[in-house]
Amino acid sequence: MIKVIVNGAKGKMGMETVKAVQKESDLALVGQTDMGDDLVQAIKDKSAEVVVDFTNPQSVMSNIRAILNAGAHGVIGTTGITENDLHEIRELCEKNRVNCLIAPNFAIGAVLMMQFAQAAVKHMPSAEIIEFHHETKVDKPSGTALRTARLMGGKVPIHSVRLPGLVAHQEVVFGGLGQTLTIRHDSLSRESFMPGVILAVRKIKGLKGLIHGLEAIL
Amino acid sequence: MIKVIVNGAKGKMGMETVKAVQKESDLALVGQTDMGDDLVQAIKDKSAEVVVDFTNPQSVMSNIRAILNAGAHGVIGTTGITENDLHEIRELCEKNRVNCLIAPNFAIGAVLMMQFAQAAVKHMPSAEIIEFHHETKVDKPSGTALRTARLMGGKVPIHSVRLPGLVAHQEVVFGGLGQTLTIRHDSLSRESFMPGVILAVRKIKGLKGLIHGLEAIL
Amino acid sequence: MIKVIVNGAKGKMGMETVKAVQKESDLALVGQTDMGDDLVQAIKDKSAEVVVDFTNPQSVMSNIRAILNAGAHGVIGTTGITENDLHEIRELCEKNRVNCLIAPNFAIGAVLMMQFAQAAVKHMPSAEIIEFHHETKVDKPSGTALRTARLMGGKVPIHSVRLPGLVAHQEVVFGGLGQTLTIRHDSLSRESFMPGVILAVRKIKGLKGLIHGLEAIL
Amino acid sequence: MIKVIVNGAKGKMGMETVKAVQKESDLALVGQTDMGDDLVQAIKDKSAEVVVDFTNPQSVMSNIRAILNAGAHGVIGTTGITENDLHEIRELCEKNRVNCLIAPNFAIGAVLMMQFAQAAVKHMPSAEIIEFHHETKVDKPSGTALRTARLMGGKVPIHSVRLPGLVAHQEVVFGGLGQTLTIRHDSLSRESFMPGVILAVRKIKGLKGLIHGLEAIL
Repeated sequence: MIKVIVNGAKGKMGMETVKAVQKESDLALVGQTDMGDDLVQAIKDKSAEVVVDFTNPQSVMSNIRAILNAGAHGVIGTTGITENDLHEIRELCEKNRVNCLIAPNFAIGAVLMMQFAQAAVKHMPSAEIIEFHHETKVDKPSGTALRTARLMGGKVPIHSVRLPGLVAHQEVVFGGLGQTLTIRHDSLSRESFMPGVILAVRKIKGLKGLIHGLEAIL
Repeated sequence: MIKVIVNGAKGKMGMETVKAVQKESDLALVGQTDMGDDLVQAIKDKSAEVVVDFTNPQSVMSNIRAILNAGAHGVIGTTGITENDLHEIRELCEKNRVNCLIAPNFAIGAVLMMQFAQAAVKHMPSAEIIEFHHETKVDKPSGTALRTARLMGGKVPIHSVRLPGLVAHQEVVFGGLGQTLTIRHDSLSRESFMPGVILAVRKIKGLKGLIHGLEAIL
Repeated sequence: MIKVIVNGAKGKMGMETVKAVQKESDLALVGQTDMGDDLVQAIKDKSAEVVVDFTNPQSVMSNIRAILNAGAHGVIGTTGITENDLHEIRELCEKNRVNCLIAPNFAIGAVLMMQFAQAAVKHMPSAEIIEFHHETKVDKPSGTALRTARLMGGKVPIHSVRLPGLVAHQEVVFGGLGQTLTIRHDSLSRESFMPGVILAVRKIKGLKGLIHGLEAIL
Repeated sequence: MIKVIVNGAKGKMGMETVKAVQKESDLALVGQTDMGDDLVQAIKDKSAEVVVDFTNPQSVMSNIRAILNAGAHGVIGTTGITENDLHEIRELCEKNRVNCLIAPNFAIGAVLMMQFAQAAVKHMPSAEIIEFHHETKVDKPSGTALRTARLMGGKVPIHSVRLPGLVAHQEVVFGGLGQTLTIRHDSLSRESFMPGVILAVRKIKGLKGLIHGLEAIL
C-alpha cells in the first residue's frame, strides 16, 4: 500500500483525486489537506510517501518545498512553475533523495497531442496553438499550451479563448503548401486526468529526481 | 445585356470575376482595368453600367468616387471601408443617382454565418470570432470578421490566424452553461464568391443607393 | 408554486432535473418516480400539475398516456417518439385539456443549431448531419439528429459516431460551390439542458395542446 | 537529369504534376501520356527512368505492369490497389530490378496524420475515421482512409462524407475516459501533393523494390 496525501483536497481537481485514490486497492489515502493545514505535519504524522498537489500558481512552490523537504515524493498537477523553479526542484530532489513529477496535463490524449505537435513542427514549421477554457480559469495561457510551445521550439504563437461552457481544449494548427494539419484535444471531464495521476502515484518511487511531463512514464 | 467593367482585373479575385462575367450570356464584359488605367475614361468610352471593384484598401475609396461620379453603379468586394466612408458613399449615390453595393464577403455561406451569428448572440452573449487566412493577407482582422462583430453588437473579441495553406475561414464560437455553439465557414476557392458577385451585378440597377452586405439582395 | 413530479428520477437526466427544480423558488418538487412506481397514483396523491419525463424510448408512450390522462401537463425529454405517437398525444391533450411539450433537446444552443440548419438548407441544399455521443447511448441516430433532418426537409444523411469520452455533440455540414458551412453544437454537461427544462415547466400551463420543440417557447 | 513521364497527364493531378516536374532543374519531363497512348513505347522511345501515375483504379494495375516491365521505376498516386496487387508488384519489381513507390497520399500532413493515428491507437483504442471529399470522387472510402485504418490495426470504422465544396479532408477521432483526441488533415489544393511527388521521383532510384507509403522516404 502506498500512503498518499492529496493537497488542495477541497478544489475541483483535488476532490476528483481523492475519489480516484480511494478506488484503488493498492493506494491508501492517509490525508486530505488544503490551505490553512500544516502539510509538513500531516506528511510526518501519517508517514505519507506521496503527495499529489492540485493547488494554485501562487502556493505551488512553497508546497513543493514542504513536500520534498519532509521526505515525500511529489506528483504536481498545479501550473505556474517557471524554468527557475525547475532548477530549485531538481536540487531539492537531490538533497532529500526524493522524486518529483511535474505535469501540466495528466490526460493521456493531451500528452499525445504534445508529442505529435513536437514531431509535426519539424516538417511543418508554421503553426499556432489555440487553447479554449472556461471563463473562470485563472492563468492564461494554460500550462499545457506553454509546455506544447516549449516542446515545439518556443516560437509558436498561443491564443487563449475564455468562454462559459468550455472545459479544457487545445488545438495546434500547422499550415503548409496547400494543406493544414490540426491536432486537437478535448478534456470533457476531470475524470480524464485520473488514470494519469494514479499511474504517476504508483511509479514516482521508482523514478529518478525531477521528471517533467507525463510522457516520461508512459 | 448589362455592360460591366472589372476593376483590379489582374488581381486574383479580379481574374476570377472576369471569367465569371464572360460565362454569363446577359452580361457584356466591356473593360478590364487595373492600377495605372484611367477608370473614368474607360467607363465613359464603353458606356459601362456596372463596375466590379476588387482592388485594395488603399485605393478603394478613390475608385468608388471615380465609379459613382462617372455615373456607373458599383459592386465593391474590396475591404477596408470605414463608417465615415459609408457616409460619403451614401451621398455620392444620391448626388449621382446611382447605386453601390459594398460586401465584405460574397460567399453565400459566409452571409449565412453572419446572419446566424447575429441571431445567436441574443441567446448566447459570450462569444469570440476566430478567422483564419493565408499568411500573405494584407489586412487583419478580415473585413468579414469586422462585419460579423458589428452585426453581433460590436463587443466580440476577434482573433486572426495567419498560416500558409489556409484560404479563407472563420468560426464564431458561443459559450453557454454546459454547452458551446460553433458556426464555421470555409471558403476553399475563389469560385465560392462568384455566384454572389454575378447576382449583385444583375440586381444593382434595381436597388436604392448604398446597400451594405450581400444579405440585402438574397 | 407549480407542483412538479420528475419521472425517471434515478436516471442521469432525472437526477439533474431534480436538483434544478429544487433550486427554483417558484417550483415545488412533489415527487420523484421511476420504473416500478405508480405514476398515476403519485400525480393524484400530490396534485402534481407538471410531470417532467426523462425515461427511455420503450416506456415513454405509456408514461405520456399516464401523465395526460391523470390530468397533468407533460414536459417530455425522452426520445423515440414517432409521427404516429404525435397524433395520439395531440388527441390525449385535447381530450384531457392538458398540454404536452416534446423536445428532443432542451439546450438552447441545440435549438439554435436546428433553426440555422433549417434556414441554411434553402440556400445550400447539399448537407450531412454527423452526431457524436458516448458509446453507451441506446438510440441511434439521436432524437436531435432526426428532428434536425426533419426540419431540413427529410432527405439529409445522418451519421452516428459512438465513442467513449464523448458527451453529446452534433454538426451539420453544408457544401456549396468552393465553400462549406458547418454548424456545431457541443453539450459538455447535463447542466446545459436545465434552463430549457425549467422554462418549459414554467410555461407549459399557458400553452395550447401539443408543442413540438423548445423553439416554440423561446 | 532524371527523365520522367507523367501518365494520366490530362487529369487534374496529372496536370499539376506536369507543372511541378517542369519547375525542377534536375528533372526532365520527357513525356505526357494518357488513355489511348502506348505507355511502353513512350518509356522506350524516351528512355524514361521514372513514370508518375495518376490515373484511375480500373487501369492502375495494367499501367504498373507496363511501367515496371518496360524497365522504369514507378511513383504511383492512383488508389484502388489491393493486398493481392501488392504481392504482384513486389514480384514485378524483383523480376525487372526496378522500384515502385505506392502512396495513397503524397501530402506531408496526411502522412503525419497517419503516423500519429498509428501511434495514438495504442493508448486510445476506440476510434473512428471520417473522410470528406467532393461529391465527384469515384472511390469510397478514400485510399488514405483505408491505409490509415490498416496502419491502426484494421478494426476502425470509416465514414465517408461526399459534398460539393469539399476538397480532400480526413479526421481521426479517438475517445477515452472523459476526453477525445482528434487528428485532422485538410488538403485545400492539389499543390499540397507536389513536394511529396517530387521527393519520390528523386529518391525512387535509390530505394529497394516495393515501397508502401511516403513515410518510408521522409
